[in-house]
Amino acid sequence: MTYCVGILVKEGLTMIADTRTNAGLDNVAQYRKLHVFERPGERMIAIATAGNLAVSQSVLSLLNEGIRDPETGELETIHTQPSMFRVAQFVGRAVREVFRIDGPALEQSNTAFEVSMLLGGQIAGGRLRLFMIYRQGNFIEATEDTPFLQIGEHKYGKPILDRAIKFGTNIEEALKLGLISMDSTMRSNLGVGMPIDLVTIRRDAVQHDLLHRIEPGEPYFHDLRERWSAALRAAHQGIPKPPYKG
Amino acid sequence: MTYCVGILVKEGLTMIADTRTNAGLDNVAQYRKLHVFERPGERMIAIATAGNLAVSQSVLSLLNEGIRDPETGELETIHTQPSMFRVAQFVGRAVREVFRIDGPALEQSNTAFEVSMLLGGQIAGGRLRLFMIYRQGNFIEATEDTPFLQIGEHKYGKPILDRAIKFGTNIEEALKLGLISMDSTMRSNLGVGMPIDLVTIRRDAVQHDLLHRIEPGEPYFHDLRERWSAALRAAHQGIPKPPYKG
Repeated sequence: MTYCVGILVKEGLTMIADTRTNAGLDNVAQYRKLHVFERPGERMIAIATAGNLAVSQSVLSLLNEGIRDPETGELETIHTQPSMFRVAQFVGRAVREVFRIDGPALEQSNTAFEVSMLLGGQIAGGRLRLFMIYRQGNFIEATEDTPFLQIGEHKYGKPILDRAIKFGTNIEEALKLGLISMDSTMRSNLGVGMPIDLVTIRRDAVQHDLLHRIEPGEPYFHDLRERWSAALRAAHQGIPKPPYKG
Repeated sequence: MTYCVGILVKEGLTMIADTRTNAGLDNVAQYRKLHVFERPGERMIAIATAGNLAVSQSVLSLLNEGIRDPETGELETIHTQPSMFRVAQFVGRAVREVFRIDGPALEQSNTAFEVSMLLGGQIAGGRLRLFMIYRQGNFIEATEDTPFLQIGEHKYGKPILDRAIKFGTNIEEALKLGLISMDSTMRSNLGVGMPIDLVTIRRDAVQHDLLHRIEPGEPYFHDLRERWSAALRAAHQGIPKPPYKG
C-alpha cells in the first residue's frame, strides 16, 4: 500500500509520502515515492506515486528520458513543459504510454494496471498548482474549496483533513495536519510505513522550502504522535457520558 | 453504504448502526439496520447488517420464520438455538440459503451478493459474545485482544477505535467512542447517515440495558460532535510547529 497527501494552501504546498511497498505481506520493501524535479527559480515540481511500482517507475523514467512528440518529432521531458497544466498532461501521456507497452501483458495475467499520482509545483510565470492523475492519464486539480488530494490508502487519514484543512490554513499547520493524517494511516494499515518524505513549496518561490525525510524514531514526529494520542484520549474522556436510558 | 460497529468490553456490549441505504446517490432511503431478538432473561441478541438490502432483509426473515433442519425436519429459528455460537452458525446458514435462492440471478446480472453482519448477545447460561458474519456464511469472533468489529464503511471510523478501545474500557466510554467513530464516518461518507440506532447489553443481564435511536438534532449527539471537533482543533493547534529546515 501507499499513502500520499498533497495540501495546497494560500501560502504554499506541502506533499507527504510514505515509503513502504509490498507485493504480498511477505514481500515488503522501501522505495521513495516522492520525487522532485527542481530548477530553482525556473520550475519546482514534485510527484508522489501510488499503485503498481513497475508502472510508476516506468512513468518516472519516461518523464526524465522523454517522449517523442509524434507530430514535431521533438523529445519532450518534464523540463520542457511550459506550464503546470502541460506537465499534468505530459504525466498523463507517460501513464498512457506505459499502459500501451505493459497494459496488455498485465491484463493477460489479470494484474490490474494501477497507478495514481499527485503532481504539485510551480513554473516561473505560472501558478502554484496541485493535481491528481488517474490511471487513465486524466486528472483533477485541487481548488480553494477542496485544497487537499490523496492517493493510495486515503480513508484512515481523511477525517482530520476534512475537519481541519482550509485554503487559509498556514503552511506549517498544513504540514502538521498532513503528518497527523499519515500517523493515523500508519496505525491502521501496516502497508503504509516509515520513513516519510515531505516537501513544502512556498507560493511564488519556485524552489523548495523544505525537503526532508523523517526517519523512524525522529524526535519531532515521535512527539507529534504522542501528543496527538494524548490529546485524543483527553478529548474523548472530556465528553460527558451518554445520557440515554432504557 | 452502511457503517455498523460492535464493541465488546468487560462490562458488556454496545452495537451502533446508521440507517441510510442507497442504490446510487439518486436513490437514498432510510432502513433500520440494527435488529433485536430479545426474550429478557432467556436471550438477548442483536444483529446489525450491511450490504445488499434485499439480501439482508431475506436473511432476517429466515431467522424469524425459520429454516427446516434437513435431517430432523424440525423448524429452527433464532429463538431455538441453544448458544451464541449456534446462533452464529444459524445466521451463516440463513446467508447461504439466501445465496442458494438469489445468488445465481444476481451473478447473471453481475450484481455482487454482498452481505455482512454483526451478531452480538448472550443466551442464559452462555457467554456474552460478538461475531462478524461474512457473505460466505462463515464468521469470526471479537476477543479481548481485538474487542471491536466493524462492517460497511469501516475505515474512516477505525483510527479512534484502534487508539482508544481496550477490553477494560467501560461500557459508557465504549458507546461514546462508537458514536465518535460514527461521527467521523458520517462526515466523510454521505452514504452513512442519521438517525443512529444503538443498543447496549450488560454482561450477564441477558436483556438490553439501552435501546435507543438518535434522531437528527438530538442534543447529546450534537454536543458530542461539537466537542469532538473543538477538541481536535485544539489538539492539532497545541502541537508545536515542525522544526524541519532546508
